[in-house]
Amino acid sequence: MTAAVLTVSDSCSRGLREDLSGPAIAQLLEQRGFQVVRREIVADERTSIENKLVTFTSIARLVVTTGGTGITRRDVTPEATVSVCDRLLEGVAERIREAGQQQTPFSILSRAVCGTRGESLVLNLPGSPRGAVDSLQSVIDVLPHALELLCGNTAHESLP
Amino acid sequence: MTAAVLTVSDSCSRGLREDLSGPAIAQLLEQRGFQVVRREIVADERTSIENKLVTFTSIARLVVTTGGTGITRRDVTPEATVSVCDRLLEGVAERIREAGQQQTPFSILSRAVCGTRGESLVLNLPGSPRGAVDSLQSVIDVLPHALELLCGNTAHESLP
Amino acid sequence: MTAAVLTVSDSCSRGLREDLSGPAIAQLLEQRGFQVVRREIVADERTSIENKLVTFTSIARLVVTTGGTGITRRDVTPEATVSVCDRLLEGVAERIREAGQQQTPFSILSRAVCGTRGESLVLNLPGSPRGAVDSLQSVIDVLPHALELLCGNTAHESLP
Repeated sequence: MTAAVLTVSDSCSRGLREDLSGPAIAQLLEQRGFQVVRREIVADERTSIENKLVTFTSIARLVVTTGGTGITRRDVTPEATVSVCDRLLEGVAERIREAGQQQTPFSILSRAVCGTRGESLVLNLPGSPRGAVDSLQSVIDVLPHALELLCGNTAHESLP
Repeated sequence: MTAAVLTVSDSCSRGLREDLSGPAIAQLLEQRGFQVVRREIVADERTSIENKLVTFTSIARLVVTTGGTGITRRDVTPEATVSVCDRLLEGVAERIREAGQQQTPFSILSRAVCGTRGESLVLNLPGSPRGAVDSLQSVIDVLPHALELLCGNTAHESLP
Repeated sequence: MTAAVLTVSDSCSRGLREDLSGPAIAQLLEQRGFQVVRREIVADERTSIENKLVTFTSIARLVVTTGGTGITRRDVTPEATVSVCDRLLEGVAERIREAGQQQTPFSILSRAVCGTRGESLVLNLPGSPRGAVDSLQSVIDVLPHALELLCGNTAHESLP
């Protein structure tokens, strides 16, 4: 199972701040059996994010983003994700928000989405290292099965 | 209260597998006072499903589908449902996903929707007999009231 | 923090029924430090609601509506809100539906949404006084922070 991690952050992309979330996500993915084949940082620019997502989904089955999911003017990761995805999985984003409420009531402000692009899955996570890792933990158990379904390795009739 | 049940399944439509979910749903509906006026099986083809939904909503107030709500390429029941509905009831689909988590974490992968078409309600359920029945059970108590609201039998001001 | 309250109701707008929800919401907002700068009643007409929302978001940071979120033919507040908002905050509407389930299973029929328009937040609440107040209570703690984020008073990096 290949994975790629995209950190979306103006300050990290300019080298003004260290990217702690990207490495933390990559580490968790590796622990869970994913092979992280690419990790990059991009500014909060919709077109740049879209281009990275298109590239990343061509080289990895799971693409995880961190950052840009809030409600300030610069937050455009969900818009970029929606525009490159074929279908959205509302239940995955919903589960992450629900899990986030254990940590902070502000998780309801997250606009993070999850969607499919061909046989790949794109998953938005929040920008903070702890928020990103906790969010990923809350859904990571379903990701391998989701990826199997997406590439047709599981018979149609066994779907949830 | 009239109801119709549509089983969406390639294998059932070809007679390769017995449809257990359609009868199980119909039985539960009858127990709850619905009169099941039509029950059919259709392949996982978007146009075929849309046509059936248009016909069924013209003869029944509640139209329940089972199957085709997952994330494989052949799953197109939600797309067909969205395209024939006037309005979506996100809270109903959300409640079903939440109830499904009691059974399996994979319920967050369901893309099932619920919507209105004129004075009828269309409700997607998963394909497995148990998943379909459990999902219907989790929202069946609100359906009669919803149908009354849709045909204007309840004063506007008493809405939730 | 400025706020405005819009009661959406055919009968209240015609003077056939007293508007109890608008004043109740305004009182709760004042208690929580908001300055309620406008309060009006409008009929369940989509264009009228849209026009009020455009005006209200130009004079207040938080615009709260009550009524018109159900599923009868006359309920069009969510459609009007979606059409004037830049972005939707699904998690806020979801939290309100979840809190509503403590009171009534029918809360899943609510189509209420929450969205941003420029630096303002628009929040739909149900029409009944108790439903409106309970719903507002369930999310009011996150609203000040949301409004700070919207006008850029909080650094981007501290987002959820």
